[in-house]
Formats: sequence, C-alpha cells, structure tokens
Amino acid sequence: MLAVAGDSAAGKTTVTSGVVEALGSDRCVSVCTDDYQRFDRIERQEQPFTPLHPDCSYIAILEQHLQLLATGQPVLKPVYDHCTGRRVRPEPVEPKDFVIVHGALPLHSKLARACFDVTVFLDTPEDVRRDWRMKRDTAVRGYGRDQVTAEIEAGEEEYVGFVRPQRAHADVVVRFGPIPSRNDPRDTPLSAEVLLRPTIRQPDLTEILAPDLTRTAHLRLARDTDGRPVDSLHIHGYTTSEENAAAEKIIWHALGDPRTDVPACLGIIASGTRSTPLAITQMILLHHLLHGPR
Amino acid sequence: MLAVAGDSAAGKTTVTSGVVEALGSDRCVSVCTDDYQRFDRIERQEQPFTPLHPDCSYIAILEQHLQLLATGQPVLKPVYDHCTGRRVRPEPVEPKDFVIVHGALPLHSKLARACFDVTVFLDTPEDVRRDWRMKRDTAVRGYGRDQVTAEIEAGEEEYVGFVRPQRAHADVVVRFGPIPSRNDPRDTPLSAEVLLRPTIRQPDLTEILAPDLTRTAHLRLARDTDGRPVDSLHIHGYTTSEENAAAEKIIWHALGDPRTDVPACLGIIASGTRSTPLAITQMILLHHLLHGPR
Repeated sequence: MLAVAGDSAAGKTTVTSGVVEALGSDRCVSVCTDDYQRFDRIERQEQPFTPLHPDCSYIAILEQHLQLLATGQPVLKPVYDHCTGRRVRPEPVEPKDFVIVHGALPLHSKLARACFDVTVFLDTPEDVRRDWRMKRDTAVRGYGRDQVTAEIEAGEEEYVGFVRPQRAHADVVVRFGPIPSRNDPRDTPLSAEVLLRPTIRQPDLTEILAPDLTRTAHLRLARDTDGRPVDSLHIHGYTTSEENAAAEKIIWHALGDPRTDVPACLGIIASGTRSTPLAITQMILLHHLLHGPR
Repeated sequence: MLAVAGDSAAGKTTVTSGVVEALGSDRCVSVCTDDYQRFDRIERQEQPFTPLHPDCSYIAILEQHLQLLATGQPVLKPVYDHCTGRRVRPEPVEPKDFVIVHGALPLHSKLARACFDVTVFLDTPEDVRRDWRMKRDTAVRGYGRDQVTAEIEAGEEEYVGFVRPQRAHADVVVRFGPIPSRNDPRDTPLSAEVLLRPTIRQPDLTEILAPDLTRTAHLRLARDTDGRPVDSLHIHGYTTSEENAAAEKIIWHALGDPRTDVPACLGIIASGTRSTPLAITQMILLHHLLHGPR
C-alpha cells in the first residue's frame, strides 16, 4: 500500500495514474482522499476552512477505510464529484494486490501512516503548483481564474499547517521544478529531485548512476532538512530525448523488468507529452511496490 | 445492539421509532439496512431480483459496519432515498449506547448476527403486511397500486428464501394480527403474539401476568415451531382502553421504570392512534436494551 501526499495540483494524480496503469487495474486500485470531503462545494463556502483542513474531511473514516484495505477488506468509499462540486453516492472498492492512496492528507494521522508500506510526498514548488492548478481548475473543474486565485490564497495557511508537515513522514520526497542554479528558458521541461530516505530499503542506484554513464540522472549524497544523510537523485529536464530514453532504459532494466521495454504509460503528463523525470520517479515507486520495501 | 428483521411493511420502522424515542436520540441511534441497497430504483428494474435478495445489497459492507458499530467505531453509512428511489451521499453514524438496526436482512449472515445482543423478527401475517404496504408505498413512496402489487408478488419467493429464514435466529418473534380463533369485526385493533425464546435471558412475566390480573395480556407456555418450549405472550387488541392502560402500567412498572409513567412515545402507529400490543412489545425490547439480556 502506497501513499502519495501533496498539495492541490502538486501532481499526485499524474504520478499515480502512470503507476496504476503500469501495474494494471486487475492488480491495482487507487483511492483519492478528496472523496472523503464532508461538504459540497456550495456548503463549504460557509465553512471557515478549505479542503486542506482535516476538519473538512471524514478523517476518522478515512483512517478506518485505510485499515480495512490494508487488511484485505472491501470498503464503501464516499465519492466527491470534482466537476459538479457535489458529494454523490458511494462506490465499493475491493482490495487488490496494490492499493495507491493519493490526496492532500493521507499521512496526517499516525494511524493512517501505519497502513502504508511506502509513503511519498510531492514537494512541488509553489509557483509550479499555482501554474498547474490554474490550468486544471479552469479547464476541468469549471472554476473562474479569480476563484482559483482566491482558493489558493485561502488554502495557504492550511497547506503550511497540515499538508506540508506530512513531508517529514515520507520515505520518498519528490520535487518537480526548474533547477534553481540554472537559467533555463521557460519552456524547458521540468527537472526532478527525488530524496530517497533510509526509512525504508531503497533501491541501490550507485552503480547504474555512476558518473559518465548518463547525463540525464545522477545520484549524490546530501543532507536532509533535519541534517541526516539522504540519497538525492537528480533527473534533468534539459537533456535531449535520446539521452532521456537511454537513461530511462538503464533505470527500468535495473529497477523494473530487464526483459521488457519501458512501459509507454510512464512519464505521461496532462498535455500528452512525456516527462523523463516523471517516468523515473514512477519507476522508483513501481520498484517499491513490486519488490516490497520492508 | 438490537436487530429488528422482517419483510417490507412488517412494522419494523414503527416498532423501532418508539423505542428510539423512549431511549432518546442522545443515547440511541437507528440504522436501516435498506440504505445498503446496491441499485437505484430505476437500475433495479433491470436486475433479476427485488430488494429482498441479498445480492441486491452491499451485504459484506453491512456486516463490516455492524462490526464497527458493535466495537464502538463510527461508520460512513450509505443512504437510499425511498421517496426518489435513488442512492444519495452517505452520512456519518457515530456509535451510541444503543444501536438499533432494522431492515429486511440484518440477520442474514452469521457474522452479522454475532454483532447483536438481542434479535427480533417481525412475523406479521401476509394479509396484514400487504395492507400496510399498499397504504405506505402509495402514500409516502409515490408508487401506483399496480406497482405495489407487482413488487409484492415479485418479492414473495425471496421473502421465503431469505427473509423468513431469519425467524429461526430471533430471540423474540412478534406477530401483529387479528386473533385467528375470534371473529372480531374488521376495525378491531390488532392483537400481538410475542414469543420469548430461551436463547437469551427473558424478563420473568409469570407473576405480573398471573390470571385475573389483566384481561389484556396473558402468558402461556407453548411449543415453538421446532417443538422446543417457549413463553408465548398474548396481548389482545379487543380489550377496552381502560383495561389496556392498566395493563401497560403494570408491565411498564415491572419491566421499565417503576418511578415513571408509560412513555407517551410507545405504542404510536402511523395514523397517530395508539396500540397497546405495540407498546408492550416495545417495553420488552426496551427492557432488553436497558437491562442487558446476556
């Protein structure tokens, strides 16, 4: 059971859907914690908080459902329709070999965290998140631009108070964004920094990412925010598509399945284009799910 | 935790609501298993069964929720709107001191039965049920008379196959109806026969129902359908309102609370009139809930 936590529009659904597709829907089910919202969009307007606040969700029921799924039992999951902003009839979720839970607060409580084998936090920088959210909420969820800006502002305090603290409980922290030290043009594909914490057994990438083997990705020893040593995997967005394909292949053969090609479903982003940093991030998550981190 | 099982329109809601009101909504919560239906009314028309069939409900989820409530945990209960025939958004149910579960199939599975302290089956005769159902479904649920007749016919086989077998698992079996051996006029209030099975510790009524103390109710030793001895409490519908009030008072002071009057919420039937057989049945259930049968 895998958790992918992060702010609204941090990329949770995009990361998750490639992993789910690679595993196949017969073996894998994904649960979005947005469905556990207590209020319809219209009811929420009278509430003193945004969906990022734990009191805005059935957190105790979410914990209960995570425990049930973790022990192989089905649940009747509530459903929130993002298009209409309304809670609708619940739907049954049968446990499968792999359960992926994504949302704003899957790691909020200790009881919930205890259900997961691997935990991921998407630490997408604020300007990237804002950009992604504006595009999604105006295009897919029927919000106006001003509404989106207002919701982002309203949620900032709760993001800091409830969402971001989950970063401390993640085994893997992923940051999609431009590389701060470089002045790449605006349309350069985003890079990723993936922190692989020693809280679980992480894949050994030292050999396959030896310097000079690939320019797309490199591994370096770093200090985590708390000062502890951590493996930091950098995957660059600016390298050529040939270099990217070669790097993906090396990593897939080491982490995934050496007998098969890189699954076409990995690395797909909303616009239909591919992202090598996303694909490699998904490979790491797949590795953890398929080979069991503990 | 108390279960009240029985066919559609057997009187489950009427029996339950008086008990819930007497206990107070701060101490008691009631759950209707109709809410666990898998299909909207319109979807069900394409199904080969009526709501009395276990496959028409989320039976495994109902079992799970009963177990959770029995162990003091909240559940997010699905909701079926009988007026519109649609499943709508679920609602949270917090466990309370007393949980009363009523519906067609709460005693269907062994796992579900294990959750209850007291189990009741309403064995209302077929002609009485038909009459009640016609009144309710045309008045409250917006069905036409022909539709109701068709639904009753369609459900008969499933009633015999799934609902009626639960009678064997009940600690208390209640039969509201006219007394077969008497030829009372049609508007005579219904009587009740209440079987008190030795599967749980039943209240001792032998003294308070000694012959000549009241004409309204009497207790006699009988044989259950399987030949085992059972206490059979008869409560007559034809006695005068003075006799009824006196009998209710005697039984309430013995079973309920000797310091208080008979609660006004007991014995209330849909039309707003009172039924002494109903009130006394509810007193027995209250006694079991308040004094713990086991």
